[in-house]
Amino acid sequence: MIELYTWSTPNGRKVSIALEELDLEYTVHPVNIGAGDQQQPDFLKISPNGRIPAIVDTGAGRSLMESGAILLYLAETHDRFLGDDRWQTIEWLMLQMGGVGPMLGQAHHFLKFNPGISPYAESRYMNEAARLYGVLDRRLAETEYLSGSYSIADMATWPWISRFEWQGIDWVNYPHLEDWYRRIARRGAVQRGYHVPGYVNDIPLPP
Amino acid sequence: MIELYTWSTPNGRKVSIALEELDLEYTVHPVNIGAGDQQQPDFLKISPNGRIPAIVDTGAGRSLMESGAILLYLAETHDRFLGDDRWQTIEWLMLQMGGVGPMLGQAHHFLKFNPGISPYAESRYMNEAARLYGVLDRRLAETEYLSGSYSIADMATWPWISRFEWQGIDWVNYPHLEDWYRRIARRGAVQRGYHVPGYVNDIPLPP
Repeated sequence: MIELYTWSTPNGRKVSIALEELDLEYTVHPVNIGAGDQQQPDFLKISPNGRIPAIVDTGAGRSLMESGAILLYLAETHDRFLGDDRWQTIEWLMLQMGGVGPMLGQAHHFLKFNPGISPYAESRYMNEAARLYGVLDRRLAETEYLSGSYSIADMATWPWISRFEWQGIDWVNYPHLEDWYRRIARRGAVQRGYHVPGYVNDIPLPP
Repeated sequence: MIELYTWSTPNGRKVSIALEELDLEYTVHPVNIGAGDQQQPDFLKISPNGRIPAIVDTGAGRSLMESGAILLYLAETHDRFLGDDRWQTIEWLMLQMGGVGPMLGQAHHFLKFNPGISPYAESRYMNEAARLYGVLDRRLAETEYLSGSYSIADMATWPWISRFEWQGIDWVNYPHLEDWYRRIARRGAVQRGYHVPGYVNDIPLPP
């Protein structure tokens, strides 16, 4: 059994989507990050960085933090969703972890939650969002999914793209990424995983 | 043979340090990111995100981008430096990729290269640097290295900490991290790897 500690954020949704795709049994523990639950001592024991998501695999007697580590753990222990080539899957997963997530996260901070506080930072992160969308779009012009077949690299990236409304994105520039985004949004497991730990909004679709 | 495309940055040094630790033969191709070499079409074929480092493993006929993917690839293909527990190594590697690297990188951008452009962003990223140093220090109070024994999680994190002078850090708060930092700085492979593709400065040491 997997115990999932999560909240309604892109990093949290990565893992609930993966659990749904793998059709695993799991128990959801909401960690209300707005209320500071992620700084509680019990949670810090399984997630020393004080961030969601984290899991406890009770059968294996193991806890794990960091969405990228959890995705790789779930994929490897079930030998699924590792794409056409495991190392290409890992490089695109790492690009999500090191680039797409952190930089789009900064875009959200400045563009959505603190508009006007730093026009320079707003421009910086909007430009970086557009650059990353371009990298993904060029990749998806060549392959159906980021690593050939649908994999944890897509599950990691898609929830961040689903916040496109906060990122100053003009979809006209990214037709291949848009097609990929809509295809994944139609998956039943993605729709179920998106609404964990609870319903917040419908999955946004490009205009 | 490994062909290494790199520059004198923390992400580049991760991989040259790992290659030195593994005592592998490799050829260095400097990619001058100040001159925009990372946007050349030939480089984008092996690093679609246009970032260093990247490698080509000519024996395996494979190219790989993203320092975290390269570190895991080198460690797994040689079955070394995976720490006391592979999944703990991967979770701390992911924390470096998703947190330590991107957030300290933003600290460098605002504090070192663009001081005064956004006091809010300077404060935001200096605070996040201090928070991450605290997470690492608490971990290293419990274990000698991030995953028990010396691993790619340490090789990934150390080069970012080696830029502490740009991050507004007061070392008095992080005695366990400082001890870890100095221990790793004394390793011959780290000293050799730090100066790839060429000498820029001596390894900085806390005052």
